[in-house]
Amino acid sequence: MNLLELVKNRKSIRNYKETDISDEMLNLIFQVVRMAPSSSNLQPWKFIAVRDIERKKKIANACQNQKFLIQAPVIVVACGVVDDARDLVGGYMVSYPVDVAIAMTYLILAAEEKGLGTCWIGDFNEEKLSNILQIPSSIKVVAVASLGYPNENPSQEYRKNVNEILSFETLQ
Amino acid sequence: MNLLELVKNRKSIRNYKETDISDEMLNLIFQVVRMAPSSSNLQPWKFIAVRDIERKKKIANACQNQKFLIQAPVIVVACGVVDDARDLVGGYMVSYPVDVAIAMTYLILAAEEKGLGTCWIGDFNEEKLSNILQIPSSIKVVAVASLGYPNENPSQEYRKNVNEILSFETLQ
Repeated sequence: MNLLELVKNRKSIRNYKETDISDEMLNLIFQVVRMAPSSSNLQPWKFIAVRDIERKKKIANACQNQKFLIQAPVIVVACGVVDDARDLVGGYMVSYPVDVAIAMTYLILAAEEKGLGTCWIGDFNEEKLSNILQIPSSIKVVAVASLGYPNENPSQEYRKNVNEILSFETLQ
Repeated sequence: MNLLELVKNRKSIRNYKETDISDEMLNLIFQVVRMAPSSSNLQPWKFIAVRDIERKKKIANACQNQKFLIQAPVIVVACGVVDDARDLVGGYMVSYPVDVAIAMTYLILAAEEKGLGTCWIGDFNEEKLSNILQIPSSIKVVAVASLGYPNENPSQEYRKNVNEILSFETLQ
Protein backbone atom coordinates (compact mmCIF):
# COMPACT_ATOMS: atom_id res chain seq x y z
CA MET A 1 0.00 0.00 0.00
CA ASN A 2 1.34 3.46 -0.79
CA LEU A 3 1.30 6.34 1.68
CA LEU A 4 -1.64 8.15 0.05
CA GLU A 5 -3.79 5.03 0.37
CA LEU A 6 -2.58 4.55 3.95
CA VAL A 7 -3.49 8.09 5.06
CA LYS A 8 -6.83 7.94 3.22
CA ASN A 9 -7.72 4.64 4.90
CA ARG A 10 -6.72 5.99 8.30
CA LYS A 11 -9.74 7.34 10.19
CA SER A 12 -10.45 8.02 13.86
CA ILE A 13 -11.73 4.72 15.26
CA ARG A 14 -13.91 4.81 18.37
CA ASN A 15 -15.28 1.26 18.33
CA TYR A 16 -12.96 -1.73 18.77
CA LYS A 17 -13.10 -5.51 18.65
CA GLU A 18 -12.27 -7.34 21.88
CA THR A 19 -9.09 -8.78 20.32
CA ASP A 20 -6.03 -7.99 22.42
CA ILE A 21 -2.93 -6.31 21.05
CA SER A 22 0.10 -8.49 21.68
CA ASP A 23 3.42 -7.24 23.03
CA GLU A 24 4.91 -8.33 19.70
CA MET A 25 2.49 -6.07 17.81
CA LEU A 26 3.22 -3.14 20.11
CA ASN A 27 6.92 -3.73 19.56
CA LEU A 28 6.48 -3.70 15.77
CA ILE A 29 4.66 -0.37 16.02
CA PHE A 30 7.28 1.15 18.30
CA GLN A 31 10.08 0.04 15.96
CA VAL A 32 8.56 2.68 13.66
CA VAL A 33 7.89 5.23 16.42
CA ARG A 34 11.48 5.17 17.68
CA MET A 35 12.73 6.29 14.25
CA ALA A 36 10.86 9.62 14.44
CA PRO A 37 13.02 12.71 13.96
CA SER A 38 13.07 15.38 16.68
CA SER A 39 14.57 18.79 17.25
CA SER A 40 18.37 18.32 17.49
CA ASN A 41 17.61 14.56 17.65
CA LEU A 42 16.95 14.88 21.38
CA GLN A 43 14.05 12.37 21.30
CA PRO A 44 12.41 13.99 24.35
CA TRP A 45 9.57 11.48 24.60
CA LYS A 46 8.14 8.75 26.78
CA PHE A 47 5.17 6.53 25.96
CA ILE A 48 2.97 4.58 28.32
CA ALA A 49 0.81 1.67 27.10
CA VAL A 50 -2.15 0.96 29.37
CA ARG A 51 -4.18 -2.27 29.28
CA ASP A 52 -5.49 -2.50 32.86
CA ILE A 53 -9.26 -2.02 32.88
CA GLU A 54 -9.39 0.01 36.10
CA ARG A 55 -6.65 2.34 34.86
CA LYS A 56 -8.39 2.71 31.50
CA LYS A 57 -11.57 3.75 33.32
CA LYS A 58 -9.64 6.46 35.18
CA ILE A 59 -8.02 7.62 31.94
CA ALA A 60 -11.38 7.79 30.16
CA ASN A 61 -12.68 9.86 33.06
CA ALA A 62 -9.70 12.24 32.67
CA CYS A 63 -10.50 12.48 28.93
CA GLN A 64 -13.91 14.15 29.16
CA ASN A 65 -15.42 10.76 30.00
CA GLN A 66 -14.96 9.37 26.48
CA LYS A 67 -16.11 5.85 27.32
CA PHE A 68 -14.89 4.22 24.12
CA LEU A 69 -11.40 4.50 25.57
CA ILE A 70 -12.29 1.79 28.12
CA GLN A 71 -13.22 -0.58 25.30
CA ALA A 72 -9.93 -0.05 23.43
CA PRO A 73 -7.48 -2.86 24.27
CA VAL A 74 -4.62 -0.37 24.67
CA ILE A 75 -4.43 3.33 25.46
CA VAL A 76 -1.14 5.00 24.56
CA VAL A 77 -0.19 8.14 26.48
CA ALA A 78 2.55 10.19 24.82
CA CYS A 79 4.66 12.51 26.95
CA GLY A 80 7.29 15.18 26.43
CA VAL A 81 10.37 15.26 28.66
CA VAL A 82 10.64 19.00 29.19
CA ASP A 83 14.29 19.14 30.27
CA ASP A 84 15.38 16.99 27.31
CA ALA A 85 13.66 19.26 24.75
CA ARG A 86 14.94 22.34 22.96
CA ASP A 87 13.60 25.46 24.58
CA LEU A 88 13.28 27.99 21.80
CA VAL A 89 12.11 26.63 18.46
CA GLY A 90 11.44 29.61 16.21
CA GLY A 91 12.58 31.82 19.07
CA TYR A 92 9.23 31.40 20.80
CA MET A 93 8.30 27.83 21.72
CA VAL A 94 9.58 24.71 23.43
CA SER A 95 10.10 21.78 21.08
CA TYR A 96 8.42 18.89 22.89
CA PRO A 97 4.82 19.31 21.62
CA VAL A 98 6.15 19.20 18.05
CA ASP A 99 8.61 16.37 18.79
CA VAL A 100 6.02 14.18 20.50
CA ALA A 101 3.50 14.93 17.74
CA ILE A 102 5.95 13.64 15.13
CA ALA A 103 6.44 10.38 17.04
CA MET A 104 2.70 10.02 17.66
CA THR A 105 2.08 10.53 13.93
CA TYR A 106 4.51 7.69 13.23
CA LEU A 107 2.47 5.63 15.72
CA ILE A 108 -0.93 6.20 14.09
CA LEU A 109 0.48 5.40 10.64
CA ALA A 110 2.32 2.29 11.84
CA ALA A 111 -0.86 1.10 13.54
CA GLU A 112 -2.89 1.68 10.38
CA GLU A 113 -0.39 -0.32 8.33
CA LYS A 114 -0.77 -3.23 10.76
CA GLY A 115 -4.58 -3.17 10.50
CA LEU A 116 -5.09 -1.39 13.81
CA GLY A 117 -7.23 1.66 14.38
CA THR A 118 -6.43 4.71 16.50
CA CYS A 119 -8.19 7.77 17.83
CA TRP A 120 -5.92 10.68 18.73
CA ILE A 121 -7.39 12.41 21.80
CA GLY A 122 -6.78 16.08 22.56
CA ASP A 123 -9.53 16.31 25.17
CA PHE A 124 -7.58 15.26 28.23
CA ASN A 125 -6.81 16.74 31.62
CA GLU A 126 -3.04 16.74 31.90
CA GLU A 127 -3.02 16.99 35.68
CA LYS A 128 -5.39 14.06 36.18
CA LEU A 129 -3.48 11.86 33.73
CA SER A 130 -0.21 12.67 35.47
CA ASN A 131 -1.68 11.48 38.76
CA ILE A 132 -3.11 8.28 37.27
CA LEU A 133 0.12 7.37 35.48
CA GLN A 134 2.62 8.60 38.10
CA ILE A 135 4.13 11.17 35.77
CA PRO A 136 6.35 13.79 37.45
CA SER A 137 5.81 17.49 36.76
CA SER A 138 8.96 17.60 34.58
CA ILE A 139 7.21 15.39 32.03
CA LYS A 140 4.08 16.61 30.25
CA VAL A 141 1.36 14.60 28.55
CA VAL A 142 1.06 15.85 24.97
CA ALA A 143 -1.32 13.33 23.41
CA VAL A 144 -3.43 10.25 24.10
CA ALA A 145 -4.45 7.63 21.57
CA SER A 146 -6.63 4.55 21.70
CA LEU A 147 -5.37 1.50 19.85
CA GLY A 148 -7.23 -1.61 18.77
CA TYR A 149 -8.69 -3.65 15.94
CA PRO A 150 -11.46 -1.57 14.32
CA ASN A 151 -15.08 -2.59 14.76
CA GLU A 152 -16.39 0.22 12.55
CA ASN A 153 -15.55 1.81 9.22
CA PRO A 154 -16.47 5.48 9.47
CA SER A 155 -16.58 7.66 6.38
CA GLN A 156 -13.66 9.98 5.76
CA GLU A 157 -13.93 13.36 7.44
CA TYR A 158 -13.82 16.56 5.40
CA ARG A 159 -10.38 17.80 4.45
CA LYS A 160 -9.42 21.10 2.84
CA ASN A 161 -8.14 21.03 -0.73
CA VAL A 162 -4.49 21.62 -1.54
CA ASN A 163 -5.19 25.07 -2.99
CA GLU A 164 -6.68 26.13 0.35
CA ILE A 165 -3.59 25.23 2.35
CA LEU A 166 -0.65 25.76 -0.02
CA SER A 167 0.55 29.04 -1.49
CA PHE A 168 3.73 30.01 -3.30
CA GLU A 169 6.45 32.50 -2.34
CA THR A 170 4.34 34.40 0.23
CA LEU A 171 1.29 33.66 2.35
CA GLN A 172 -1.95 34.06 0.39
CA MET B 1 8.06 -0.32 0.63
CA ASN B 2 6.64 -0.74 4.10
CA LEU B 3 6.54 2.03 6.66
CA LEU B 4 9.45 0.72 8.73
CA GLU B 5 11.70 0.74 5.65
CA LEU B 6 10.40 4.21 4.73
CA VAL B 7 11.17 5.74 8.13
CA LYS B 8 14.56 4.02 8.29
CA ASN B 9 15.51 5.33 4.85
CA ARG B 10 14.38 8.83 5.75
CA LYS B 11 17.31 10.96 6.96
CA SER B 12 17.89 14.69 7.23
CA ILE B 13 19.23 15.75 3.83
CA ARG B 14 21.33 18.91 3.62
CA ASN B 15 22.80 18.49 0.13
CA TYR B 16 20.57 18.53 -2.95
CA LYS B 17 20.82 18.00 -6.70
CA GLU B 18 19.95 20.95 -8.90
CA THR B 19 16.88 19.13 -10.24
CA ASP B 20 13.72 21.23 -9.78
CA ILE B 21 10.62 19.95 -8.04
CA SER B 22 7.63 20.26 -10.35
CA ASP B 23 4.25 21.62 -9.34
CA GLU B 24 2.87 18.14 -10.08
CA MET B 25 5.28 16.60 -7.57
CA LEU B 26 4.40 19.21 -4.94
CA ASN B 27 0.73 18.49 -5.56
CA LEU B 28 1.29 14.74 -5.07
CA ILE B 29 3.00 15.41 -1.76
CA PHE B 30 0.27 17.77 -0.58
CA GLN B 31 -2.43 15.24 -1.49
CA VAL B 32 -0.93 13.30 1.44
CA VAL B 33 -0.40 16.36 3.67
CA ARG B 34 -4.03 17.49 3.35
CA MET B 35 -5.23 14.18 4.85
CA ALA B 36 -3.46 14.81 8.18
CA PRO B 37 -5.69 14.63 11.25
CA SER B 38 -5.89 17.62 13.59
CA SER B 39 -7.52 18.52 16.87
CA SER B 40 -11.32 18.61 16.26
CA ASN B 41 -10.44 18.34 12.54
CA LEU B 42 -9.89 22.11 12.45
CA GLN B 43 -6.92 21.84 10.04
CA PRO B 44 -5.40 25.11 11.35
CA TRP B 45 -2.51 25.15 8.89
CA LYS B 46 -1.05 27.05 5.95
CA PHE B 47 2.01 26.06 3.92
CA ILE B 48 4.21 28.25 1.77
CA ALA B 49 6.48 26.78 -0.91
CA VAL B 50 9.40 29.04 -1.81
CA ARG B 51 11.53 28.64 -4.95
CA ASP B 52 12.72 32.22 -5.55
CA ILE B 53 16.47 32.40 -4.98
CA GLU B 54 16.46 35.83 -3.34
CA ARG B 55 13.70 34.79 -0.95
CA LYS B 56 15.50 31.55 -0.15
CA LYS B 57 18.60 33.58 0.78
CA LYS B 58 16.55 35.66 3.18
CA ILE B 59 14.98 32.54 4.67
CA ALA B 60 18.39 30.90 5.13
CA ASN B 61 19.54 34.05 6.90
CA ALA B 62 16.51 33.83 9.23
CA CYS B 63 17.40 30.18 9.92
CA GLN B 64 20.75 30.71 11.64
CA ASN B 65 22.35 31.20 8.21
CA GLN B 66 22.02 27.52 7.23
CA LYS B 67 23.24 27.99 3.67
CA PHE B 68 22.17 24.58 2.38
CA LEU B 69 18.62 25.96 2.39
CA ILE B 70 19.52 28.19 -0.56
CA GLN B 71 20.60 25.16 -2.56
CA ALA B 72 17.36 23.25 -1.92
CA PRO B 73 14.98 23.69 -4.87
CA VAL B 74 12.03 24.29 -2.51
CA ILE B 75 11.72 25.49 1.07
CA VAL B 76 8.39 24.70 2.74
CA VAL B 77 7.31 26.93 5.62
CA ALA B 78 4.55 25.44 7.76
CA CYS B 79 2.32 27.75 9.76
CA GLY B 80 -0.37 27.47 12.40
CA VAL B 81 -3.51 29.60 12.14
CA VAL B 82 -3.91 30.55 15.79
CA ASP B 83 -7.60 31.51 15.70
CA ASP B 84 -8.54 28.30 13.89
CA ALA B 85 -6.82 26.07 16.48
CA ARG B 86 -8.14 24.60 19.71
CA ASP B 87 -6.96 26.62 22.65
CA LEU B 88 -6.63 24.14 25.49
CA VAL B 89 -5.34 20.71 24.56
CA GLY B 90 -4.69 18.84 27.79
CA GLY B 91 -5.98 21.89 29.65
CA TYR B 92 -2.66 23.67 29.10
CA MET B 93 -1.64 24.21 25.49
CA VAL B 94 -2.89 25.51 22.16
CA SER B 95 -3.25 22.83 19.50
CA TYR B 96 -1.54 24.34 16.48
CA PRO B 97 2.09 23.22 17.14
CA VAL B 98 0.86 19.63 17.39
CA ASP B 99 -1.53 19.96 14.44
CA VAL B 100 1.08 21.50 12.15
CA ALA B 101 3.65 18.91 13.27
CA ILE B 102 1.30 16.09 12.23
CA ALA B 103 0.86 17.60 8.75
CA MET B 104 4.60 18.28 8.43
CA THR B 105 5.30 14.65 9.38
CA TYR B 106 2.99 13.57 6.58
CA LEU B 107 5.02 15.86 4.29
CA ILE B 108 8.44 14.41 5.15
CA LEU B 109 7.15 10.85 4.71
CA ALA B 110 5.36 11.63 1.44
CA ALA B 111 8.53 13.28 0.14
CA GLU B 112 10.62 10.26 1.15
CA GLU B 113 8.25 7.92 -0.68
CA LYS B 114 8.67 10.02 -3.85
CA GLY B 115 12.47 9.89 -3.64
CA LEU B 116 12.83 13.39 -2.24
CA GLY B 117 14.87 14.38 0.78
CA THR B 118 13.91 16.80 3.53
CA CYS B 119 15.53 18.52 6.46
CA TRP B 120 13.16 19.70 9.18
CA ILE B 121 14.49 22.98 10.59
CA GLY B 122 13.75 24.16 14.13
CA ASP B 123 16.41 26.86 14.13
CA PHE B 124 14.41 29.72 12.67
CA ASN B 125 13.51 33.22 13.73
CA GLU B 126 9.73 33.38 13.60
CA GLU B 127 9.60 37.17 13.43
CA LYS B 128 12.05 37.41 10.51
CA LEU B 129 10.28 34.66 8.55
CA SER B 130 6.93 36.38 9.07
CA ASN B 131 8.35 39.56 7.55
CA ILE B 132 9.92 37.75 4.60
CA LEU B 133 6.77 35.78 3.79
CA GLN B 134 4.16 38.44 4.64
CA ILE B 135 2.64 36.39 7.42
CA PRO B 136 0.29 38.30 9.77
CA SER B 137 0.74 38.02 13.54
CA SER B 138 -2.35 35.79 13.82
CA ILE B 139 -0.45 33.07 11.97
CA LYS B 140 2.68 31.52 13.47
CA VAL B 141 5.52 29.69 11.74
CA VAL B 142 5.87 26.27 13.41
CA ALA B 143 8.37 24.53 11.15
CA VAL B 144 10.54 24.91 8.07
CA ALA B 145 11.71 22.12 5.78
CA SER B 146 13.96 21.96 2.78
CA LEU B 147 12.85 19.73 -0.08
CA GLY B 148 14.84 18.36 -2.99
CA TYR B 149 16.44 15.36 -4.65
CA PRO B 150 19.18 14.08 -2.31
CA ASN B 151 22.81 14.51 -3.28
CA GLU B 152 24.11 12.68 -0.19
CA ASN B 153 23.29 9.54 1.75
CA PRO B 154 24.10 10.23 5.39
CA SER B 155 24.22 7.41 7.92
CA GLN B 156 21.25 6.98 10.21
CA GLU B 157 21.37 9.04 13.37
CA TYR B 158 21.22 7.39 16.79
CA ARG B 159 17.77 6.46 18.03
CA LYS B 160 16.76 5.22 21.48
CA ASN B 161 15.59 1.63 21.78
CA VAL B 162 11.94 0.79 22.36
CA ASN B 163 12.57 -0.24 25.97
CA GLU B 164 13.94 3.24 26.66
CA ILE B 165 10.83 5.03 25.46
CA LEU B 166 7.94 2.66 26.19
CA SER B 167 6.68 1.54 29.58
CA PHE B 168 3.52 -0.25 30.67
CA GLU B 169 0.71 0.90 32.97
CA THR B 170 2.67 3.74 34.60
CA LEU B 171 5.69 5.86 33.70
CA GLN B 172 8.95 4.05 34.43
